[in-house]
Amino acid sequence: MRKLRVGIEGGAGFAGGELIRILLGHPKVEIVSATSSTFPGQPVFMAHPNLRGRTALKFSLKLDYERLDALFMAGGHGDAMGEVPAIIHQSAKKLRIIDLSGDFRLKDPELYPLWYGRKHHSPALLKSFSYGLTELNRPSIAKSRWIANPGCFATAAAIALGPLARGGASGTVAVTAVTGSSGSGASPSLITHHPTRHANMKAYKPFRHQHVPEVEMILEQLAGRKALKLSLVPVSGPFARGIYAVCQAELPKGWTLETVKGHYQDMYGGSAFVRLVDEPPTLSAVNGSNHCDVFVTVQDGRIGVIAAIDNLIKGASGQAVQNLNVMMGWDEKLGLDFAGHYP
Amino acid sequence: MRKLRVGIEGGAGFAGGELIRILLGHPKVEIVSATSSTFPGQPVFMAHPNLRGRTALKFSLKLDYERLDALFMAGGHGDAMGEVPAIIHQSAKKLRIIDLSGDFRLKDPELYPLWYGRKHHSPALLKSFSYGLTELNRPSIAKSRWIANPGCFATAAAIALGPLARGGASGTVAVTAVTGSSGSGASPSLITHHPTRHANMKAYKPFRHQHVPEVEMILEQLAGRKALKLSLVPVSGPFARGIYAVCQAELPKGWTLETVKGHYQDMYGGSAFVRLVDEPPTLSAVNGSNHCDVFVTVQDGRIGVIAAIDNLIKGASGQAVQNLNVMMGWDEKLGLDFAGHYP
Amino acid sequence: MRKLRVGIEGGAGFAGGELIRILLGHPKVEIVSATSSTFPGQPVFMAHPNLRGRTALKFSLKLDYERLDALFMAGGHGDAMGEVPAIIHQSAKKLRIIDLSGDFRLKDPELYPLWYGRKHHSPALLKSFSYGLTELNRPSIAKSRWIANPGCFATAAAIALGPLARGGASGTVAVTAVTGSSGSGASPSLITHHPTRHANMKAYKPFRHQHVPEVEMILEQLAGRKALKLSLVPVSGPFARGIYAVCQAELPKGWTLETVKGHYQDMYGGSAFVRLVDEPPTLSAVNGSNHCDVFVTVQDGRIGVIAAIDNLIKGASGQAVQNLNVMMGWDEKLGLDFAGHYP
Amino acid sequence: MRKLRVGIEGGAGFAGGELIRILLGHPKVEIVSATSSTFPGQPVFMAHPNLRGRTALKFSLKLDYERLDALFMAGGHGDAMGEVPAIIHQSAKKLRIIDLSGDFRLKDPELYPLWYGRKHHSPALLKSFSYGLTELNRPSIAKSRWIANPGCFATAAAIALGPLARGGASGTVAVTAVTGSSGSGASPSLITHHPTRHANMKAYKPFRHQHVPEVEMILEQLAGRKALKLSLVPVSGPFARGIYAVCQAELPKGWTLETVKGHYQDMYGGSAFVRLVDEPPTLSAVNGSNHCDVFVTVQDGRIGVIAAIDNLIKGASGQAVQNLNVMMGWDEKLGLDFAGHYP
Repeated sequence: MRKLRVGIEGGAGFAGGELIRILLGHPKVEIVSATSSTFPGQPVFMAHPNLRGRTALKFSLKLDYERLDALFMAGGHGDAMGEVPAIIHQSAKKLRIIDLSGDFRLKDPELYPLWYGRKHHSPALLKSFSYGLTELNRPSIAKSRWIANPGCFATAAAIALGPLARGGASGTVAVTAVTGSSGSGASPSLITHHPTRHANMKAYKPFRHQHVPEVEMILEQLAGRKALKLSLVPVSGPFARGIYAVCQAELPKGWTLETVKGHYQDMYGGSAFVRLVDEPPTLSAVNGSNHCDVFVTVQDGRIGVIAAIDNLIKGASGQAVQNLNVMMGWDEKLGLDFAGHYP
Repeated sequence: MRKLRVGIEGGAGFAGGELIRILLGHPKVEIVSATSSTFPGQPVFMAHPNLRGRTALKFSLKLDYERLDALFMAGGHGDAMGEVPAIIHQSAKKLRIIDLSGDFRLKDPELYPLWYGRKHHSPALLKSFSYGLTELNRPSIAKSRWIANPGCFATAAAIALGPLARGGASGTVAVTAVTGSSGSGASPSLITHHPTRHANMKAYKPFRHQHVPEVEMILEQLAGRKALKLSLVPVSGPFARGIYAVCQAELPKGWTLETVKGHYQDMYGGSAFVRLVDEPPTLSAVNGSNHCDVFVTVQDGRIGVIAAIDNLIKGASGQAVQNLNVMMGWDEKLGLDFAGHYP
Repeated sequence: MRKLRVGIEGGAGFAGGELIRILLGHPKVEIVSATSSTFPGQPVFMAHPNLRGRTALKFSLKLDYERLDALFMAGGHGDAMGEVPAIIHQSAKKLRIIDLSGDFRLKDPELYPLWYGRKHHSPALLKSFSYGLTELNRPSIAKSRWIANPGCFATAAAIALGPLARGGASGTVAVTAVTGSSGSGASPSLITHHPTRHANMKAYKPFRHQHVPEVEMILEQLAGRKALKLSLVPVSGPFARGIYAVCQAELPKGWTLETVKGHYQDMYGGSAFVRLVDEPPTLSAVNGSNHCDVFVTVQDGRIGVIAAIDNLIKGASGQAVQNLNVMMGWDEKLGLDFAGHYP
Repeated sequence: MRKLRVGIEGGAGFAGGELIRILLGHPKVEIVSATSSTFPGQPVFMAHPNLRGRTALKFSLKLDYERLDALFMAGGHGDAMGEVPAIIHQSAKKLRIIDLSGDFRLKDPELYPLWYGRKHHSPALLKSFSYGLTELNRPSIAKSRWIANPGCFATAAAIALGPLARGGASGTVAVTAVTGSSGSGASPSLITHHPTRHANMKAYKPFRHQHVPEVEMILEQLAGRKALKLSLVPVSGPFARGIYAVCQAELPKGWTLETVKGHYQDMYGGSAFVRLVDEPPTLSAVNGSNHCDVFVTVQDGRIGVIAAIDNLIKGASGQAVQNLNVMMGWDEKLGLDFAGHYP
């Protein structure tokens, strides 16, 4: 059977590298090309030395969309919304697109400028992109050709809070989420400068991170009404991989630990990648895999939910492939059926 | 002038080592002896290689309390409450004691067994120990001979929340606080095993950490009534030094960012060690020093407060020396007037 | 076709966990059982949380050797030499054995007590075990039923120096090799205590590490005479995974960079796992995989060779599986055809 | 008594920050000004958050050399050689200068272009600068007004090897030296990008690092003839502070461990900062201080010497202040009499 022909835009970034690594092991997919403006014409291992000897692929400057069945866009935030209209036109709407940027996540066109601080170039397309938080939006993804892949913080927070929202909880949830440095990408900057990132912690954009509205949007959809309000403090942590999200909420009246656990069991009982765990999760248990480990506790009228993911896999490339699988009607685990190494 | 003669119990632990290092630079103090059951008779640098060549002190097995003016107890939690009655008796109540353990922090004798899971051996002494959160309890410390030095999480959380409590805020505060591994002490254990602590995060005792009641106690004292409720999720972080505490609360009706900042300015405006900072603090700015950096923000009805300390200095040994200074009527900064290295 | 039935002794250690992870993905192997004295009867994910949901296997206390086709021994050093005679007897010599300990690596019975500081219990069996440095000893492994899997330092050093030895170089090679903390195993100890391992370096056993004689043994075999002498300083590094070995030797008379590169190309040109790289290698390029990256340079009469491996994979479990593949006559890459994640 | 008035060029870099921190505690020195092109007019804590509240100093764009008694140059390599002639002229040769760059270290004008790859602008001045490896060149420093402060690798290697050279050893010494990321300065770059620096190792400039010739120069001076040849492989390590240098040499004929230890005792027995230690040193014992810990061993005809320093203190700012002290005829320990924190 002919394999699905996919292209990757932004293949030299960290998410692009993980996409290539994952897709090289995907039984139904063939990587036709991957672009890089830094390494055009050079072998993939120049950007991703782990892939030396594992593929002969070289980066190209441009993709030929007509030769592709599916496109992963892993370039910078703000690029996709400018390029997508032409790509859609050129491919006669046949190309499946999975955009890993924040450009098409928010359905309400007024939210984008509010949280991203700039105008959206293609607001009319926003509603054509299905929000790709697989476990929370599978039916919509299955029917869609274009997917807006969630942000890494959003993935952890939305998986942590989805069952509460669907179960009817309301109010504000306080979330502190710590991220690894790979989330800032492959280009050096002050925030990822080793001497000051190492052995350090630093919060940023408290209450104002742009992943907040996409979480509230999907929680509202699950609840069927305005539901949980996300009060998020992101923190830069001294590790390279992972998001660790600690969530606290009031226990709704009448709920017990069993009520809460029931909601999580309902939602994730049969999930391939979300694992409900009995003690607080760790990054080392999920890093290198598409898993999200979720822990729930109740004490003195408070709910605590803690979720851990690999920011580049479940928080980016892995979920992107998971969404492709769902779109194609394939087994959701194709190409993703691996654990990370431990420790 | 004769220097104050101090002894240290538990001198080979991490807090003990920092105490020795700090006191070696204290102009009014002389270390008479320091105990260690692991290194008796051996030079201090066997436990603290940074102190090689800086002191000829050797560890002893026992202290001679009658030769001491002041005693720092830096041994294990649960030891002090057994030993203190005899020490007090032997020293005819003249010995100043600063206990770094959790034994004498909680004034309500019912709270200790609830949070520490065991009986208290000397409940009658609880009220004789002043709670040593210097910036929040200075007058009481100044009049006291016996001090219960606060826990590391408690120090960060109480400094972060004190102004809110004194300003009249109420309700639950959600705190996620990440600690360095040195807080677990010098003895190896699974929680500090490098392969699984490195590049990892793991919450523990969610909502149930024993530092919670001491914070609520001092906040209640500041507020003059039951005030803020602390909802704390402690997390083990992949660094050796520091506590990073992220706090979220509802903004009380009628308050603005200016109201909030005013409360912090009132409380810490003239402080030697608490620094109000304009952007989220970092561990690297406080580690190696007795400083606590505090950041405050207000957004959409939420207050965010973030505090950073060195867990072994402001969270233990440094604050212990600060308390000695206050007790003795000395300049609070004596022996503590240093910055840590950066980065 | 019936899969090969394998058992793992010491399945709860770090090498045991990686063995299980790798073998779960091996198309021709079935894990029948894995032992643990700490977690008997408990699911594998209690020791290896990354494997939660990936296998229903539970640890057992004992193996039934008669049900097995192959046995991996990943228990403590010194255990295998006591157990192997009975295992061989019980399995009527039919069982394939891959021992990951140091017990059967040294062929000369006088060397073991010299380097391990104790008597060998089964010296007569030493020569029946083939030394499992796959790339350097493939023909012998292919004919063997019993394999002594190399040490992690030895793997890096022997791969780095093998071509020099075979090419005829002699003299002393100065090697400094830095290891990750996972090499010390899953049990906490002072050497792996996070507060003092973190951001630190410490050499140990300078010139006296027990991996030295196995490297000199295989180099002698490659040279056909006493060849290179290994002068090794091992260092504990502040990371969890990897061995980074920096080797320096005199350039033999008449050799040039081309001569040297020729020897490496001859030996590793067609290798599945050893990759010759053009600039100094990194741990992040090999960690999580069975690869060994090797860099060679020549300057002013000196040869520099640098090798990087994942200590738990190429330095332990991965090479063990590679040796099984060679023994069975299978494709050497079976179950090992993956890259690690990056970064 | 009037304090010495010092200025710092390049005060916003990491070495500049440590200089300011150290000099703020120096009893005989007053910092008049410090320059920064990035933070002109802004308080020092903008670059060095650890110094918030510890000084009111603001960065300036330029120094007024006539107001200064001493100048520390901590700007980029290659700047000093262009600026020094004018500074000398402007200050009528009265200004004491301590240059932390590599510009004036090599006395042989032919060496600079060979190792730095560019022309030297002020070759005539090279011999006027005394090489500031304090422990190895004290008499010359004491008589000098201009000091070329050594490189960080050079400091560790030269202290490690000085006694061997003076004792008469010859031949090649193989050194692998691992450095923390702060050695690359405060500006982000690929080599200090956290995701790929973290948990990683990478050698660079094998045999070709520019610190090699300054070590050979001072060793030659100690030996009174061409002595030890330095074969250095530098490695970027996953920590922020420290240099860990592992040196291996042939044991000269007739020498024993006692001979070797005697040479080290002769040279460092009364040293304030070099500590001879009985087991391999660690970075955590020296970081934050001006100490260099040195360990020596002999085995089977090989000498092993391991040295550990804090790259920004003994490897830069601390040694610069130590040199100032020696130049001024002050106690060498002034301003430097502190241990770093541990762990």
